[in-house]
Amino acid sequence: MAESTVIRFGVIGCADIARKVSRAIALSPNATLHAVGSRSLEKARSFVAANGGAIAYGSYEAVLDDPDVDAVYVPLPTSLHVRWAVLAARKKKHVLLEKPVALNAKEFDEIIEACESSGVQLMDGTMWMHNPRTASMKEFLSDANRFGQLKSIHTCFTFSTNADFLENDIRVKPDLDALGALGDEGWYCLRAILWAANYELPKTVIASREPELNKAGVVMSCGASLYWEDGKVATFYCSFLSNLTMDITAVGTKGTLHVHDFIIPYEEKEASFYAASESGFDELVTKWASQPSKHTINTDLPQEALMVREFARLVAEIKFNHSKPEKKWPAVSRKTQLVLDAVKASIERGFEPVQIQE
Amino acid sequence: MAESTVIRFGVIGCADIARKVSRAIALSPNATLHAVGSRSLEKARSFVAANGGAIAYGSYEAVLDDPDVDAVYVPLPTSLHVRWAVLAARKKKHVLLEKPVALNAKEFDEIIEACESSGVQLMDGTMWMHNPRTASMKEFLSDANRFGQLKSIHTCFTFSTNADFLENDIRVKPDLDALGALGDEGWYCLRAILWAANYELPKTVIASREPELNKAGVVMSCGASLYWEDGKVATFYCSFLSNLTMDITAVGTKGTLHVHDFIIPYEEKEASFYAASESGFDELVTKWASQPSKHTINTDLPQEALMVREFARLVAEIKFNHSKPEKKWPAVSRKTQLVLDAVKASIERGFEPVQIQE
Repeated sequence: MAESTVIRFGVIGCADIARKVSRAIALSPNATLHAVGSRSLEKARSFVAANGGAIAYGSYEAVLDDPDVDAVYVPLPTSLHVRWAVLAARKKKHVLLEKPVALNAKEFDEIIEACESSGVQLMDGTMWMHNPRTASMKEFLSDANRFGQLKSIHTCFTFSTNADFLENDIRVKPDLDALGALGDEGWYCLRAILWAANYELPKTVIASREPELNKAGVVMSCGASLYWEDGKVATFYCSFLSNLTMDITAVGTKGTLHVHDFIIPYEEKEASFYAASESGFDELVTKWASQPSKHTINTDLPQEALMVREFARLVAEIKFNHSKPEKKWPAVSRKTQLVLDAVKASIERGFEPVQIQE
Repeated sequence: MAESTVIRFGVIGCADIARKVSRAIALSPNATLHAVGSRSLEKARSFVAANGGAIAYGSYEAVLDDPDVDAVYVPLPTSLHVRWAVLAARKKKHVLLEKPVALNAKEFDEIIEACESSGVQLMDGTMWMHNPRTASMKEFLSDANRFGQLKSIHTCFTFSTNADFLENDIRVKPDLDALGALGDEGWYCLRAILWAANYELPKTVIASREPELNKAGVVMSCGASLYWEDGKVATFYCSFLSNLTMDITAVGTKGTLHVHDFIIPYEEKEASFYAASESGFDELVTKWASQPSKHTINTDLPQEALMVREFARLVAEIKFNHSKPEKKWPAVSRKTQLVLDAVKASIERGFEPVQIQE
């Protein structure tokens, strides 16, 4: 790829996740890490020394003002997303935004509007969407003969944390990541449900009782049930207080999908799922006639680099070919946020059903 | 084993499941199939010709009146359980009762009372409880270091049926198996949840919205959320309208259990589950530090034969050693029925929370 078509990234904020994404930018053939900004110049310099990048800045603004920066990656706490993503868009920077994209859909709409006004690409940082396994699973779910019609889906994302996390991490702080485990983990569960449902929004969401909240009222664990017009049902569970688990179980009229590492695969370069079709028993119902089959998909780049590559490809199309931004990505972010908002509202309203309106 | 200590079974009703259990009786070293009764003598004779047994009777009563019969297996439609199980107990026959054990806990209490009065053993036909894998999984769930405290569990049992089943099977008929998919499949889901929770009853049960009912009002698919005092949560889903799926996903503070064939294992002579403990990622959070481990347990007899063997062992203890009946089995049946009743009540009350009282 010619040097000139490589998209130059700026990163604002030196969160842990920024290290992973900086590596992904380095791995992506059409992207390069140009500038890193932190409120502390020293922190930015040491990040650049460890993770690459041409320039370290002592502020986020400096990154947005650098004319050589095409796109910014925003790993800041959720409460800061609207401010910095909107500002980045106004400065004509394309925006790769960490999830959850905002504190609520209303805030996210401000970000969408700013990006649309400036004609810049917006995409959220949901990496597993870009793993080739995801397309392969979708192919199975879309197969009328092998999977049929989706009837029910259960997703789960939990991981265990320690006392330091539960006391100090931004994800337990009401002024930083007020959505807690729902925003950090539930986001993926809801995205997976929407993805399996072809992004058709559920009509009703009811939060599970007994969510665990910390003293500040931030969600440490929660779940919900989702209902569609056609009778499809979904449930999910997320928690900071349980062993690492990440499942999708999707059951259709003719097939079943199981995956146990959907967000971050067991291995970087390959990922598997289990598919079963028209499963049944032997004649005396003492064993199965056939077992689910394991499908393994290889990838040359880890999924986070594929995400950066796809984002940079869209940015390059806009920059060099005068294409319009791809609206699919902000649209799926917004739907995820809408359902997430409904779960939160249901918790706040004592587990009442919440209707979703687009 | 000496001939005299072998327990002689009678079977009342020639349901499909009776064929599987007759084979299990034949495989079990301490049991033998003595008599089979059907309302049609011809049907009983052809069952005996195909599945073994010494005597064919043209009525259920004749089996209960045969002094050579020690124990009866009752595969009749659920609505007939209370009548025939109580009568069997009164005639001093030990009772192996198909699930769901009754239409409701009140009816089941009549059965328990009759069995207790007569000093006969009562056990339900939940076969997977007797697979050695189940004990092995329980060992994992009970391990404070490997699994920790149970926080959430999801279970699922679905299978697809055809037009003939949906029109004619006893499990879609309100006068025969009025509990439909909830009784036939949900029973297993609820048993698995209770089993994982050490048979501690949830305090609250809320049925999922949008259960599918047939024209007669019998459940074709449904689900529910269960809540315990300690904050544990469970969800389940069952359906006659989805591909065959049977899952337990149990997540603890330190470990995760996955099993995808818990009710009827893929193979008769071996069964597996997946256990993960203190799962985590590599340093850059791009892959897992370790993967769940697969545990495979072999068995010389299929689980249904192990069930018969255990039941016959308890019966022999009573018959030859003057032991008392084992109360554990009716107790777990009753708890399963109580929770099942609560799900049904919640559906009937428009998905209101139902408190469980023992």
